Amino acid sequence: MYNILLKIDRDSSQPIYVQLANEMIQLIRSGVLKPGTKLPSIRNMAKELDVHPRTVVAAYDEIAAQDWICSKPRSGMIVAMNLPELKPINFQSDTEQPAAKNIFSESHDTFRYKLIINDGFPDHRIAPFEQIMKYYKQAFYQNESEKMSMYSNSSGSFRLRKAFSAYLGESRSLAVNMENILITRGAQMAIYLAASLLIKPGDEVLVGDPGYFLANAVFEQLGAKLTKIPVDQDGIDVDMIEKACKRKFKLLYIIPHHHHPTTVTLSAARRMKLISLIKQHQFKVIEDDYDYEFHYAHRPILPLSSAEHDGHVLYIGSVTKSLISSMRMGYLIAPSELISKATHHKQLMDIRGDLLFEDALANLYENGTMQRHIRKSLKLYQQRRDIFCRLLKNEIGNEISFKIPDGGMAVWVVFDKKYNLSELSSKAARQGLRLSDGSLYNSSTANLNAVRMGFASLDETEMIAIVAILRKIMNV
Amino acid sequence: MYNILLKIDRDSSQPIYVQLANEMIQLIRSGVLKPGTKLPSIRNMAKELDVHPRTVVAAYDEIAAQDWICSKPRSGMIVAMNLPELKPINFQSDTEQPAAKNIFSESHDTFRYKLIINDGFPDHRIAPFEQIMKYYKQAFYQNESEKMSMYSNSSGSFRLRKAFSAYLGESRSLAVNMENILITRGAQMAIYLAASLLIKPGDEVLVGDPGYFLANAVFEQLGAKLTKIPVDQDGIDVDMIEKACKRKFKLLYIIPHHHHPTTVTLSAARRMKLISLIKQHQFKVIEDDYDYEFHYAHRPILPLSSAEHDGHVLYIGSVTKSLISSMRMGYLIAPSELISKATHHKQLMDIRGDLLFEDALANLYENGTMQRHIRKSLKLYQQRRDIFCRLLKNEIGNEISFKIPDGGMAVWVVFDKKYNLSELSSKAARQGLRLSDGSLYNSSTANLNAVRMGFASLDETEMIAIVAILRKIMNV
Repeated sequence: MYNILLKIDRDSSQPIYVQLANEMIQLIRSGVLKPGTKLPSIRNMAKELDVHPRTVVAAYDEIAAQDWICSKPRSGMIVAMNLPELKPINFQSDTEQPAAKNIFSESHDTFRYKLIINDGFPDHRIAPFEQIMKYYKQAFYQNESEKMSMYSNSSGSFRLRKAFSAYLGESRSLAVNMENILITRGAQMAIYLAASLLIKPGDEVLVGDPGYFLANAVFEQLGAKLTKIPVDQDGIDVDMIEKACKRKFKLLYIIPHHHHPTTVTLSAARRMKLISLIKQHQFKVIEDDYDYEFHYAHRPILPLSSAEHDGHVLYIGSVTKSLISSMRMGYLIAPSELISKATHHKQLMDIRGDLLFEDALANLYENGTMQRHIRKSLKLYQQRRDIFCRLLKNEIGNEISFKIPDGGMAVWVVFDKKYNLSELSSKAARQGLRLSDGSLYNSSTANLNAVRMGFASLDETEMIAIVAILRKIMNV
Repeated sequence: MYNILLKIDRDSSQPIYVQLANEMIQLIRSGVLKPGTKLPSIRNMAKELDVHPRTVVAAYDEIAAQDWICSKPRSGMIVAMNLPELKPINFQSDTEQPAAKNIFSESHDTFRYKLIINDGFPDHRIAPFEQIMKYYKQAFYQNESEKMSMYSNSSGSFRLRKAFSAYLGESRSLAVNMENILITRGAQMAIYLAASLLIKPGDEVLVGDPGYFLANAVFEQLGAKLTKIPVDQDGIDVDMIEKACKRKFKLLYIIPHHHHPTTVTLSAARRMKLISLIKQHQFKVIEDDYDYEFHYAHRPILPLSSAEHDGHVLYIGSVTKSLISSMRMGYLIAPSELISKATHHKQLMDIRGDLLFEDALANLYENGTMQRHIRKSLKLYQQRRDIFCRLLKNEIGNEISFKIPDGGMAVWVVFDKKYNLSELSSKAARQGLRLSDGSLYNSSTANLNAVRMGFASLDETEMIAIVAILRKIMNV
């Protein structure tokens, strides 16, 4: 039988025993050889296949090492009763381990949400998706682009960086060249790279309190010592930063527009004072301006980077926030020697982005589609902010406090102390509504009892339904 | 004049001096106020605009801080002669800095290549691109998916991990659950994450020599001490690994199929010995099996991971290599507690992948499109390997040495010592051919005078044209 089932190619460069082993594993896996089946003795198998007995020994050893067969007293080798596929390989303790915890999804994963209050994301329903797809296909079928993309600079698509350099000048008075731009998978990668370049273990880093937990986590991962600077209605407390200047800290991380999580914007007076502190004390700053595009009250304040000419301020922006949350893209703006170092570090973890997608996106900046989309979003999100805040005020206004944000995509809603957010979150889930339990926004010392409520991606019907559920579960 | 040009909104929450500053910057940027224009004195401006003189002082200070205006002796404030936009902000030393060096593109960036010899990439012309786009659109327009994607597990799309767990079982006898899979942007990110979890500064890591430079760079970045183990025609020297076991090294990095750069495959005998060493000495292994799918001589050897049940082997695979080089995707397979930690680390640098794309790809695995595509590619690339190797042998065979690779997408071509690869690379560029100068493949100690020549993405016409150019520049 086995001389028919097992095909041996004597001209192959692969040793015969390996061929034999692989063929037998196939027979076992496909069910031809069932668990418990007795295999021929080494001598009989060798005879049947016309190979040296040592070849059969080696093949059996290989298959046994992979647990497909085992020796049974007085029976010789048999096909294993518990085949390797039937048990998870490597993973003895699997069932006891919880699944990887997603920082954006604290619990209730088994519920199917009908409605979601997110952290502040754009509405993908108004995004220029078809145009992106059109240009993406174009880029793909230009044979050249795909070929060349492998050898495009790892800082990002040449064409997109060119488009960005024009756009950043127009929108933010940031006069930068291509060499000052590194395109990343979302603003988060830009934070990680900037921090990796600047921080050594033990360095002091100033962050806002409350602050952006995923930035803090990066700094801590790199061994930094965090100093928390209070954030009030005018943004981060610059007088406290001035005091810290006496002891030569390494880095300040700041979110000038719509600070995360509280949505406050740095006041102009503080901004000016901060610029003069940077000039005087020459400390490094990561300016995370992920929300620049969405300022409703008036024109956004200009980035610190646009007023600071000595390369101390590294500027970070987000494309994701203007577009579609699943398409992650951001950028880091810095002096070219830093961009060069950041590019090297980026290659270690992500050789290059999707350069066809980046080229496709460049089209949208070049022909003004993105700019129009941002203006359109700005108008719509401002209306939605007003509707949502009015609903909150009218329906549950006595139970919460919030300030209408100047911009951004979320309201910072503080709940009355009588509400336990973890309980509310569970109750909401049972109503089909995803509501954060707020734990991610808390600092290590304080329970803020608050959540960010993203309004930008919700239409009025959804808002009304959400606030009705909130009202119900809060017993208002 | 200024009371017409400068609009002030006294109901705005923005301080008047900020409004004033922003408006004036706009006038300067738009060219209404030309460089050198004298501005009204503080008193006149305040009078004209009906604001307090202190407001004008604050506005002028803000604009001056951003270098839009400056004070000129005996003239008061004038619009700056060198406007901020005309010089690159931050970046005094810009012109002296070289652009970020791309490790995959050593030089000649200004040439327009007609032909490219790459490191070993798939042919995007045969990829199921239209199907991916179709499913991508489907995923996008399923409102739910985009909404939910924000809250999908950061380990990667639920659906794709499920598809992978089935596929890895069928193709590699790797019986893994979703919790054992982390989806990454290319295999490189998987290497970075696995190494970040396992390596502490000072740890000893065993790597092949010659070896994959981008993996070595990751280990060195993390502070590891590299020990280079020779790689010969049977793969890495396992006897040398055995000797190293005496001193308790931390990690072995191994590429079992088509080692990078030399394309050799680990022999079955060495593989078995290595498995027993791992079981005996319990060291950790990163098994980078980026090229598993493309084995021509016979069925690929099974991963070490499939024979090792204690979680010491972390397995890395690549989707990019089976699909399209610009769409970067890979995965890490490990015990769930390690995947959980790796997911946390991944979030710090890349909050989540493009989950719509991942869902789209899951379709292709579920309905067998990917499997068919891989079989088709395998057949085509084997033909191309044979054609390319025959051309090399017939046309320049006396000047080079190479072994026909068992699999993979590249041939490792060693040039006769009389050829200087850096010179050849320059000459090739002038003929419109991109040829690596080989420097990336060299170890620190040896000039191998060799390059990887990717054949998989070349059709016969391109191969003939490439070999003709090689012949010409080598004066054969």
